[in-house]
Amino acid sequence: MASKVTPLSGFQEWLPAQRIVEQRFTDTLREVFELHGFASIRTRAVEPVDRLGGQGEDADKEIYGVRRLAATDEDGEPGMGLHFDLTVPFARYVLENAGHLTFPFRRYQIQPAWRGERPQRLRYREFVQADIDIVDSGDLPFHYEVEIPLVVADAFSRLPVGEFRIHVNNRKIPEGFYRGLGIDDVTTVLRIVDKLDKLPPEAVRERLLADAGLTAEQADQCLALATVRTDDTGFVDQVRALGVSHPTLDEGLDQLAQVMAAAAEHAPGLLLADLMIARGLDYYTGTVYEIRLVDAPEGTPSIGGGGRYDALASDGKRTFPGVGISIGISRLLGLLVGEQGLVADRETPVAVLVAVNDEDSRAESMRIAAALRRRGVPTLVSPKAAKFGKQIRFADRRGIPYVWFPGAGEAGGDAVKDIRSGEQVDADRDVWSPPAEDLTAALVTPEA
Amino acid sequence: MASKVTPLSGFQEWLPAQRIVEQRFTDTLREVFELHGFASIRTRAVEPVDRLGGQGEDADKEIYGVRRLAATDEDGEPGMGLHFDLTVPFARYVLENAGHLTFPFRRYQIQPAWRGERPQRLRYREFVQADIDIVDSGDLPFHYEVEIPLVVADAFSRLPVGEFRIHVNNRKIPEGFYRGLGIDDVTTVLRIVDKLDKLPPEAVRERLLADAGLTAEQADQCLALATVRTDDTGFVDQVRALGVSHPTLDEGLDQLAQVMAAAAEHAPGLLLADLMIARGLDYYTGTVYEIRLVDAPEGTPSIGGGGRYDALASDGKRTFPGVGISIGISRLLGLLVGEQGLVADRETPVAVLVAVNDEDSRAESMRIAAALRRRGVPTLVSPKAAKFGKQIRFADRRGIPYVWFPGAGEAGGDAVKDIRSGEQVDADRDVWSPPAEDLTAALVTPEA
Repeated sequence: MASKVTPLSGFQEWLPAQRIVEQRFTDTLREVFELHGFASIRTRAVEPVDRLGGQGEDADKEIYGVRRLAATDEDGEPGMGLHFDLTVPFARYVLENAGHLTFPFRRYQIQPAWRGERPQRLRYREFVQADIDIVDSGDLPFHYEVEIPLVVADAFSRLPVGEFRIHVNNRKIPEGFYRGLGIDDVTTVLRIVDKLDKLPPEAVRERLLADAGLTAEQADQCLALATVRTDDTGFVDQVRALGVSHPTLDEGLDQLAQVMAAAAEHAPGLLLADLMIARGLDYYTGTVYEIRLVDAPEGTPSIGGGGRYDALASDGKRTFPGVGISIGISRLLGLLVGEQGLVADRETPVAVLVAVNDEDSRAESMRIAAALRRRGVPTLVSPKAAKFGKQIRFADRRGIPYVWFPGAGEAGGDAVKDIRSGEQVDADRDVWSPPAEDLTAALVTPEA
Repeated sequence: MASKVTPLSGFQEWLPAQRIVEQRFTDTLREVFELHGFASIRTRAVEPVDRLGGQGEDADKEIYGVRRLAATDEDGEPGMGLHFDLTVPFARYVLENAGHLTFPFRRYQIQPAWRGERPQRLRYREFVQADIDIVDSGDLPFHYEVEIPLVVADAFSRLPVGEFRIHVNNRKIPEGFYRGLGIDDVTTVLRIVDKLDKLPPEAVRERLLADAGLTAEQADQCLALATVRTDDTGFVDQVRALGVSHPTLDEGLDQLAQVMAAAAEHAPGLLLADLMIARGLDYYTGTVYEIRLVDAPEGTPSIGGGGRYDALASDGKRTFPGVGISIGISRLLGLLVGEQGLVADRETPVAVLVAVNDEDSRAESMRIAAALRRRGVPTLVSPKAAKFGKQIRFADRRGIPYVWFPGAGEAGGDAVKDIRSGEQVDADRDVWSPPAEDLTAALVTPEA
């Protein structure tokens, strides 16, 4: 094995105590997704290159091709590439298995994806995504657009991410509003207005006049719409007050009001009707979502988003509309673990270290460990029959809270010591368990 | 999205009810690994090609190179490839993080790996492996060689794999035995004897005479050693009876006897001392393991293996010896799920479907679902306020065992029906739970 290690930038790897945070996050997401009836799938890492392409020139450039090192051009192997999101493989999976799936199909998927982009803060070349989608064959009822952000709110409420908001809009609102203003090229206007998170309003206004050919009044109205933001259904009156009307606008306002009304009951304070949110303009057709951390430093990108789309995939006969959201696990952990120091208070799952009195009694220590494990207590036997002080330090260095001493109790029984408090009590290997809060690692930040 | 789906051979993907089996297997392995004190790590999918190479010409040919499609030779990007096992990335991880890890370091890792080999029965181009290893800095105590197969036995005892055996040998036994016979070129003899699983003994004997230059007596002794196989420490006397002696042989017999003695207590009947097992000849230096399913059809390869190695990695100053085992999840599932039809009895995690009386009361059904989920019951709200018969069929088709009817109980309360038995009882959304065996899917085989 070569000894020189060449670090690769843009690939996130964690030390064991940090990895426990990652596991806790993905476990929690999985648990909540399953509680809400999403089934897991796992797709292969590669797709045919022709299925990955066509996402725009910049995106295509970032695709990683995959090819056997020994392949020659004569082999005629089909071009393969690593998937750059979980949507393309999911769409292919739905088409490939449509005859075996029952629709509406609710799936979650937690896997890495790869993009060969230049690594920057919170942007990686390999990143784990957690996606949920509900797709149907033919028609997809609107109520799923109400449901998706409630699932995400439920999940994030259980994660130590601090305050968060799910910003919600409905593509029909700007579209209907623009049409009501007499604007025909809705897409161009949307694309310009979407720059509001990067450019000052005055610059966006200039472009609306110059590039989209809007009148000053139209431009002002478009900007006014984009500033509407309420944590309840109050946005409806604010939009109405702008005096524009169109059937598509009515539909959008009604749908977004339904989302906010359900949020008021099931996820109070967690959703925000934010009419500036656009996301992937050509793709989404109804409700759109963006997940943001309230206390994240300036310049932190959103850590997830999604929306309603009318055609995830089509096999020529059937079309599969859907609604979904994608959570950027690597980005979330890059911020919370990498930048803010969130970490587990131990670097191992172990709750109890069983001491070894001398090497001849290792078998007895193994018996104790087996008894504890049978009752679900992660247990390790000490690697060496060293002095007890040294064995305790072995546990302490790893954050293991308890050390078990065979035969150290009354009448030849065992004893267990909480090495944080120093308290030692007699204990029966077939009865004693650590308190629930010590059974698994706790997540801590250095500041806390 | 292009509509044509091109299947790729050698990539295993499962339908949702099969995927539940995969999850159950990886969850069980993870649980047991953590109970035994192994910490999780996750490494990136790619390694520098120069780290992946040098595993033998055939293996090198199978490496998948990874390169941005838009990369030009002038970019000078370092050559990267997908890892083909979890050992190479683990060795690199240990070197890269040696200063931050505490040794002995026990890690488990459950991830895909990739090899561009020709797909065959139970051999895949993308395959999930579950690895455990214990590595130390400098010296690694022998007792870890005793421990590793006990962890695997604990894990497999909890999986529906049928009868299994962990075949165990110690590299010091053939090495010492050959040296005791006066054979110098131990490696060549080992390599020829290792063919016994493919060639008849007579053919192996011919090669020992012709290629390794053994005398007839030496060859017969080597073959006699390889046939020794006992489920207890009886192998020691059988080897002694062959009349060969050497200090290395003594050490190997003693160590293998310790493994078998511990197995007799902690994993009775699950280990087999099998002196034919060799595995990766140049690599292992002590105990070696191979996991086999007793009832698997003829020609089924082993579903895991490993052993003790003296140098996982070295940074020039320190050497990291270790012992570990790798379980081939994809191979296991290819056999049990793909060939034998093992599957979950539902295609969703959902235990309860909440019916919707009419679309106006969907909010009430959502409230019921939220109450059940708060108590850990995976619950789905019916997609449409269809006739109850249709809503029941929706549940039935997915294997969801219970349907909840809002307001169908006495005095306006709710009722829940077990749709398998047809039994319906009044139920309180804040109290009722399904029996534990119905809370999660059960794994079944069509024959059972």
